[in-house]
Amino acid sequence: MRLLVVGSVALDSIITPFGEVNDALGGSAVYFSVAASVLTGVRMVGVVGSDYPMADLKRLAARGVDLAGVEHAQGESFRWKGKYSFDLASRETLETRLGVFADFNPKIPASFRETPYVFLGNIHPDLQLSVLEQMAAPRLVACDTMNFWIDSARDRLLEVLKRVDLLIVNDEEIRQLSGDWNVHRAARWVLEQGPRRVIVKRGEHGALLVETGRSFYCPAYPLEEVFDPTGAGDCFAGGFLGYIARTGDTSSEGLRRAMVFGSAMGSFAVSSFGVGGFDGVTPAQLQQRVTSFKDLTHFEIAEAVA
Amino acid sequence: MRLLVVGSVALDSIITPFGEVNDALGGSAVYFSVAASVLTGVRMVGVVGSDYPMADLKRLAARGVDLAGVEHAQGESFRWKGKYSFDLASRETLETRLGVFADFNPKIPASFRETPYVFLGNIHPDLQLSVLEQMAAPRLVACDTMNFWIDSARDRLLEVLKRVDLLIVNDEEIRQLSGDWNVHRAARWVLEQGPRRVIVKRGEHGALLVETGRSFYCPAYPLEEVFDPTGAGDCFAGGFLGYIARTGDTSSEGLRRAMVFGSAMGSFAVSSFGVGGFDGVTPAQLQQRVTSFKDLTHFEIAEAVA
Repeated sequence: MRLLVVGSVALDSIITPFGEVNDALGGSAVYFSVAASVLTGVRMVGVVGSDYPMADLKRLAARGVDLAGVEHAQGESFRWKGKYSFDLASRETLETRLGVFADFNPKIPASFRETPYVFLGNIHPDLQLSVLEQMAAPRLVACDTMNFWIDSARDRLLEVLKRVDLLIVNDEEIRQLSGDWNVHRAARWVLEQGPRRVIVKRGEHGALLVETGRSFYCPAYPLEEVFDPTGAGDCFAGGFLGYIARTGDTSSEGLRRAMVFGSAMGSFAVSSFGVGGFDGVTPAQLQQRVTSFKDLTHFEIAEAVA
Repeated sequence: MRLLVVGSVALDSIITPFGEVNDALGGSAVYFSVAASVLTGVRMVGVVGSDYPMADLKRLAARGVDLAGVEHAQGESFRWKGKYSFDLASRETLETRLGVFADFNPKIPASFRETPYVFLGNIHPDLQLSVLEQMAAPRLVACDTMNFWIDSARDRLLEVLKRVDLLIVNDEEIRQLSGDWNVHRAARWVLEQGPRRVIVKRGEHGALLVETGRSFYCPAYPLEEVFDPTGAGDCFAGGFLGYIARTGDTSSEGLRRAMVFGSAMGSFAVSSFGVGGFDGVTPAQLQQRVTSFKDLTHFEIAEAVA
């Protein structure tokens, strides 16, 4: 297996205008893995409490997710409860109970340490650095973060940035991190901190990949029905890195393709509650959606106007 | 000349974090014409008061804008004053003085009546219908509108929709018009009212073209410096219809190209105050920017994953 993810394994309770679920499989590592495993095997590192529905989690194993890095701790699992606005454009966190996730200290199994592609999900920057210490020599490391760490552990986060190849964040996060409201300037600032590439996720508007001197924009897939945006960003990351891990292509052109695979995964994620959007998603369906993105964005330049 | 625009000719006072201008050339017809005239001759229909700086307006004539349809009325010109937030993401209208624009009743000069491509700027739907009555048999009519008419003259606006080929609005407007927060469903609803195509302008996120069974998304050009978003939407429309009027190509592929020309014009518009972003924009520069959009959005599908 060529891809490793470290992140949260949670139980999500989600209220949207279209219904609700309670204690459903969630967390960044879970969403990431469900998406990435359509394309490649995934090694998951996380922690669950004694109350976690292991039968549900083990269904991921059947998709090609190696759960050997999921630690079983005494206590309650990480729980998140949120409610979306009528148009799904914003959400309110109703409850966060960290449980065993509060003391999470990722231990990478020996058999995982030579994994070439690594995604550091949204955890304390110190834990992200600890994971990097445990890895042999990954070919590409991507990381996520959130407003909480940008505020409370900025120096450590900047340390992480020096050591990763790619930062994947949303537009609010990159603005907060850089102190610049213009996302293109903010992205350039990030590139000056270490990563060679940065991806800005912009929700229903799509995602932007910035490299020095070059940008690529992939819109969100046009969906008339969106049920639950939870985990869409992690599924994007899973599709993106799943494609890179599968192909080994980290060229600029390869990353563009990976952006489209990530966006396709995001579109499956929001199409039903929780991780349900991936039930039955095959590589063939994924390929078809990627082809649709081409029709959505491509144009031919005809005769010049000058 | 193959393109006609009817809309406001105003004096704008604009405050942004980067500076301010007072009584500068503005209004939808002016912004539209400045952009479109890079590509094609434009016939402008509007009204100005006795205080309008005609020397400034006549500079448009040198760019290929026929001002024979600009009526000179006794009284004050239309004035708008607005202030943008620190990140240019929102603006507050500080003052609107309609002046002679309040009694605007567009009269299309006889020499303008056979113009094949028509843009009905944001005016009362009854006036948009009156313009259509005066035109011979245009090949393509596009129209804009705004929240005020959606609220106060909805039935007349639906009458307009029955008679135009294309609606160009922003995302808030299409949501309000359709009563649906999902822009893709909202666009399909618009197509059921008459127009064969609808464009949803999404500001810094780009623009979406929807036809039956097919969508095209063009992101906004990545700019590290944005000075003044005023008129960007009208410049988009000017670039879009300017390209169509120039080429006569109303095919799906032609409209996609026109979307990119429109987006390029939007990027010039926001790069300086008022219409100043177009000073010195040549067809060659425009062509170069259009080519940049290709690099921004295109990807090649490599070997299939399925």
